[in-house]
Amino acid sequence: MSDPTSGVKTVGLLGAGVIGGGWAVRCLIHGYDVVLYDPDPEADRKVGEMLENGRRAWRQLTLAPLPREGRLTLVRSPGEAAEAADFVQESAPEREDLKIRLLAEASRAARPDVIFGSSTSGLLPTRIASQMTHPERFTVGHPFNPVYLMPLVEVCGGEKTTMETKEKAMAFYRTLGMHPLHVRKEIDGFIADRMMEALWREALWMVNDGVATVEEIDDAIRFGPGPRWAFMGTFLIYRIAGGEAGMRHFMAQFGPSLQWPWTKFMNVPELTDALVDEIATQSDRQAAGADLRSLERLRDDCLIQIFQGLKAKNFAYGADLAQFEKTLYDRAHAGVAAAAEDLSAPLRLHRATVLPEWTDYNGHMTESRYLQVFGDASDALLRLAGIDQAYVAAGRSCYTVETHICHLAEAKAGEAMTVATRVLAAKGKTLQVYHELFRDRDGARLATGEHMLLHVNTRESRAAEPPATVADKLADIAAAQAHLPPPDKAGRAIAG
Amino acid sequence: MSDPTSGVKTVGLLGAGVIGGGWAVRCLIHGYDVVLYDPDPEADRKVGEMLENGRRAWRQLTLAPLPREGRLTLVRSPGEAAEAADFVQESAPEREDLKIRLLAEASRAARPDVIFGSSTSGLLPTRIASQMTHPERFTVGHPFNPVYLMPLVEVCGGEKTTMETKEKAMAFYRTLGMHPLHVRKEIDGFIADRMMEALWREALWMVNDGVATVEEIDDAIRFGPGPRWAFMGTFLIYRIAGGEAGMRHFMAQFGPSLQWPWTKFMNVPELTDALVDEIATQSDRQAAGADLRSLERLRDDCLIQIFQGLKAKNFAYGADLAQFEKTLYDRAHAGVAAAAEDLSAPLRLHRATVLPEWTDYNGHMTESRYLQVFGDASDALLRLAGIDQAYVAAGRSCYTVETHICHLAEAKAGEAMTVATRVLAAKGKTLQVYHELFRDRDGARLATGEHMLLHVNTRESRAAEPPATVADKLADIAAAQAHLPPPDKAGRAIAG
Repeated sequence: MSDPTSGVKTVGLLGAGVIGGGWAVRCLIHGYDVVLYDPDPEADRKVGEMLENGRRAWRQLTLAPLPREGRLTLVRSPGEAAEAADFVQESAPEREDLKIRLLAEASRAARPDVIFGSSTSGLLPTRIASQMTHPERFTVGHPFNPVYLMPLVEVCGGEKTTMETKEKAMAFYRTLGMHPLHVRKEIDGFIADRMMEALWREALWMVNDGVATVEEIDDAIRFGPGPRWAFMGTFLIYRIAGGEAGMRHFMAQFGPSLQWPWTKFMNVPELTDALVDEIATQSDRQAAGADLRSLERLRDDCLIQIFQGLKAKNFAYGADLAQFEKTLYDRAHAGVAAAAEDLSAPLRLHRATVLPEWTDYNGHMTESRYLQVFGDASDALLRLAGIDQAYVAAGRSCYTVETHICHLAEAKAGEAMTVATRVLAAKGKTLQVYHELFRDRDGARLATGEHMLLHVNTRESRAAEPPATVADKLADIAAAQAHLPPPDKAGRAIAG
Repeated sequence: MSDPTSGVKTVGLLGAGVIGGGWAVRCLIHGYDVVLYDPDPEADRKVGEMLENGRRAWRQLTLAPLPREGRLTLVRSPGEAAEAADFVQESAPEREDLKIRLLAEASRAARPDVIFGSSTSGLLPTRIASQMTHPERFTVGHPFNPVYLMPLVEVCGGEKTTMETKEKAMAFYRTLGMHPLHVRKEIDGFIADRMMEALWREALWMVNDGVATVEEIDDAIRFGPGPRWAFMGTFLIYRIAGGEAGMRHFMAQFGPSLQWPWTKFMNVPELTDALVDEIATQSDRQAAGADLRSLERLRDDCLIQIFQGLKAKNFAYGADLAQFEKTLYDRAHAGVAAAAEDLSAPLRLHRATVLPEWTDYNGHMTESRYLQVFGDASDALLRLAGIDQAYVAAGRSCYTVETHICHLAEAKAGEAMTVATRVLAAKGKTLQVYHELFRDRDGARLATGEHMLLHVNTRESRAAEPPATVADKLADIAAAQAHLPPPDKAGRAIAG
């Protein structure tokens, strides 16, 4: 199970719908060749569109180098896909008879040691593998949509499945960056879909009974328990909700509500002492000695990451948070314009927080983000001087032609920083800018950036003096700041 | 409802457990004075600890200025809390008789226009307000744990509650940065807890039946559907899962599974044409014209934000992702080592394509991406010299301390580029690197980057000579390249 290499080069896929197409994309992105069978004449186009989504997602997800993309081949029969494959994944529609037939046919064409995974959401592996040759090499590998991005794959064997089959399948899924979960008992719906289905059935009742609309129900999830479920499941969340007394207290406090009509789902297990003991013991093992306060902080830290990430997308609670921040700023009468009234000091026009995706393998803000922050600060200065979107649309701009950065200290994810900006010179077509980046927490200077910018006429692709309004504003700032001591890190060359 | 100010200055709180304490913290952080009643002699300490958590959370959550923190006063009776308050929030244990008594007592002490919210998770508002004076000013305001951070508050009135009461309560909750959801029908468990309870009851069955442990069940959520629920609810997620055919297709495809034993919850509503129509119509309204591809991208973008955020915390899928990136880096390292056998010419270790999201408002690759590409090329050089994940894990690394970039030509989205890398000097603790960035299409030189790097001991946070294997490899490259002409853009200072 710890073997990082799967020995697989070519993956055979049966079915190219939302799930099968997702497998194709995930395999291609992670360097596997894919041989795909689907009767849909549009499968090629659909997989192509999903591949665009998948590439886009992985480019954003990681800076780590991905392997050379695999090759996609479409074939006309399940047998052709299985024959060419070192691993077969079946993702046909959820019809037991169809899956039985398809797996039987493909298994006859495959080498006897080739492992078969099935994407079924909840059909029993023993039944769908019943007509296969070598059913011992079959296992369920149930993924989640979008398959090219979601981590979970539930691995559940049938009566004849060997442990070796499951271990090899899990090793293969790990090479795709997935998180296999071994479902130890063969049960309809496995684990995740049983819970999704319980939630779904309750949601259908609420629409059916006119209690709430689909949008209200979705909001109740995504503004409520949903963000917590992104990183802690229901048991650990409830353990924390129990407060200092923990899981036993939670069970004692909310035990009675199991008998109350808080869902349509009234056939509940009896909370015997034995069951409460079992849950409390398992919960202790899961918490692995972590105390309440540290679990609370871990939970809060993850929520904060999620809320900030959603703010970047201006969606779900992220949109609320952005709006709420605007209210806070308005209320405090803060803002860039107020801060920039005094031109004689270094201008504090730009603040930034180190985002998680800005950090490198050292855990620090990666070097290019320093230049991004300086670039954003230069843009803020240019806007202050009247170089805005309208200016660019009119065929003018201001380009950086030379940059000199001194890295003085590291910044970590979550740290807030402020740029202090000076105009060293603003003459004719050139603009010389000096930024210092400070960490808010302790005032540490993280970096300096010296930048030569050139005013340009973008229509004629040549340097050009800016209009007088812009030139005057920049000259005013340079004059107001002329009394400041010379910057210690300007005019440097890298010593050979 | 759109009034941003609530007119509230002092909040009276009844109960200071996990929920009541969370309200206290949220109100204090957002500038309200709090008058708190709880019979627990340790309430003061517990709220104090939660306040530490809450302050820490909001400091990280936002850079926006928070108001001056409110003042906390503990009192000895519900009446004293209600008497002083402009808004009362009750968070007593979930016992109907207790809540009826407490609310009755407090309502007699409060001004008649003071609004009462109850944190009950699912008791019926009409019943718990039955002994209150002025029950028209009572509403449920059901929050989620941790109350100081979670956005949702379900607002559900009883038979006598006025719409004005609910609107005022929602306006107040919004001033705390929360997201009120109006529950239009009075129903046990409201909306969110009905779904949480369905999921919880299913989870209890699985532990009871020995199908899975609490940890396995939690993993099935947090690596599976959980991350999606952080920003889209079950209906919108399923709409997207339906693929191009949308919600109707999803209902048709998964309708039959409602009759299958995928949960213990078998009393399902009949999927009549009318119910399917209702859901599809509501789902169309919710999607508000967004097409499948844009919904998919929004979903993926939010997932990526969440996964990257969790990576910064090295928790849940974030820990998996960090480990998987290490694998990707290691694998690329093996490839780079093979590609760089001739050390005497500039090393071509890194290629990149200008991605659409790398371009700025001028339509060109934005300046910080030049440094990103150079940084990636430096990383490839370092890996070639043996500075890899294992090296970093062992407490060593190599940091950039100074950078000088000359921008020579622009690059547009889609253009492929190659970096040619030279080691100008590798002596003791320092490493001087020179990159040239060429456009593949026409060989145009786009930029040069000169970089001074420092070998470091990260455990002791100091510069340190690298081990001999690394030093020798870098010296070998420098020696092999010593015959090359001096680089034209090295050793420069920005001219003042």
